[in-house]
Amino acid sequence: MSSPPAPETVVDLLGVLAYGELLAFDQMATDARLAPDIQRRAILSEMAGAEIANYRRLVDRIAALGHDPERAMTPFVAALGAYHEQTPPHDWLEALAKAYIGEGIADDFYREVAALLASPDRELVLEVLHDTRYADFAAEELRTAIAADPKIANRLALWARRLVGEALSQAQRVAAEHESLADLVITGSSDLAGIAALFKRLTTAHTARMASVGLNN
Amino acid sequence: MSSPPAPETVVDLLGVLAYGELLAFDQMATDARLAPDIQRRAILSEMAGAEIANYRRLVDRIAALGHDPERAMTPFVAALGAYHEQTPPHDWLEALAKAYIGEGIADDFYREVAALLASPDRELVLEVLHDTRYADFAAEELRTAIAADPKIANRLALWARRLVGEALSQAQRVAAEHESLADLVITGSSDLAGIAALFKRLTTAHTARMASVGLNN
Repeated sequence: MSSPPAPETVVDLLGVLAYGELLAFDQMATDARLAPDIQRRAILSEMAGAEIANYRRLVDRIAALGHDPERAMTPFVAALGAYHEQTPPHDWLEALAKAYIGEGIADDFYREVAALLASPDRELVLEVLHDTRYADFAAEELRTAIAADPKIANRLALWARRLVGEALSQAQRVAAEHESLADLVITGSSDLAGIAALFKRLTTAHTARMASVGLNN
Repeated sequence: MSSPPAPETVVDLLGVLAYGELLAFDQMATDARLAPDIQRRAILSEMAGAEIANYRRLVDRIAALGHDPERAMTPFVAALGAYHEQTPPHDWLEALAKAYIGEGIADDFYREVAALLASPDRELVLEVLHDTRYADFAAEELRTAIAADPKIANRLALWARRLVGEALSQAQRVAAEHESLADLVITGSSDLAGIAALFKRLTTAHTARMASVGLNN
């Protein structure tokens, strides 16, 4: 492994992660209203609660590194905001699919990036990845709905493609605007073949997640 | 003190508390968008996160008592929903005032009710009362805003009166529809003079809270 990234790069990374948690909180808290009953509504609300707890851990670390959290997050407001604005879920299943698919990809990506960090940032990033019991809940709901009405699968597969497309487009924007973050991934991957392999791993995991709930990628 | 309330009454009480937490989560999560910057937005989001964590503790206790949480909450959906629907905050200060004043009264009330319960419900109800550091944050924001522009005090005092009026009206509805809960308070207060004294204590505390941020009751 190459030497650990510069402190500024780590702060950039923590900043994008933290703001991502804040917006994920907001999106899930809003989407919880789409739930068909109180208990399901509460589960999505609790997923949101987990995000905001992670937000706190990340901004505390940014502050401990001597940086201003607000300043660290501001550069990512536009891109992350655009992702959510472009992909508002219209019903409960779209909300769950967004949480399941979006966070699945984000977690896979941040798990890869964590490997490039030194302690304690490596551990922090790994710890703020999502609790699998929430992904399990979302997957089970999606599976049940698709089994009951297979036509839903087509609609949700289309929705998933929109989510991935929008996420990639905003990720490109972040990479273009933050060379240090792009460099972190590029250096971590050693070379172009390494980046290709990273994308291959992310795609394979995404396809497996889709298949596990009955969706074609 | 009289004998502890019947298990069904405790379940009613935990049900109204739990659904209140879920709606408070929802309201604060939504209101967080009104914040003037990311860090303030995050603090209200964290307040929401604390509500949903408390929700989980309450429904777990309902389930442990052998009752269905969804069924325990359903009777309170209309009244609690109406309170929030009738009092949507229009800006950051109204949102903070709602959290500060509404939760202050609710906490005072539930603290009184907790004294009427047996363990472990007594401790549970006391533990899900709001963390004072959030009330301190809201109070400080309100104080600063009023100091900078004293005209704000009139508007917020009116707003507070609307909140209290709506809360009282919905509380009456809950009491009318749930005799067991009304009985709990009445029995706990021994007699009419006791109830008057309870209302006096709640009013005094509310007036003190208002005064401490520069608002006339």
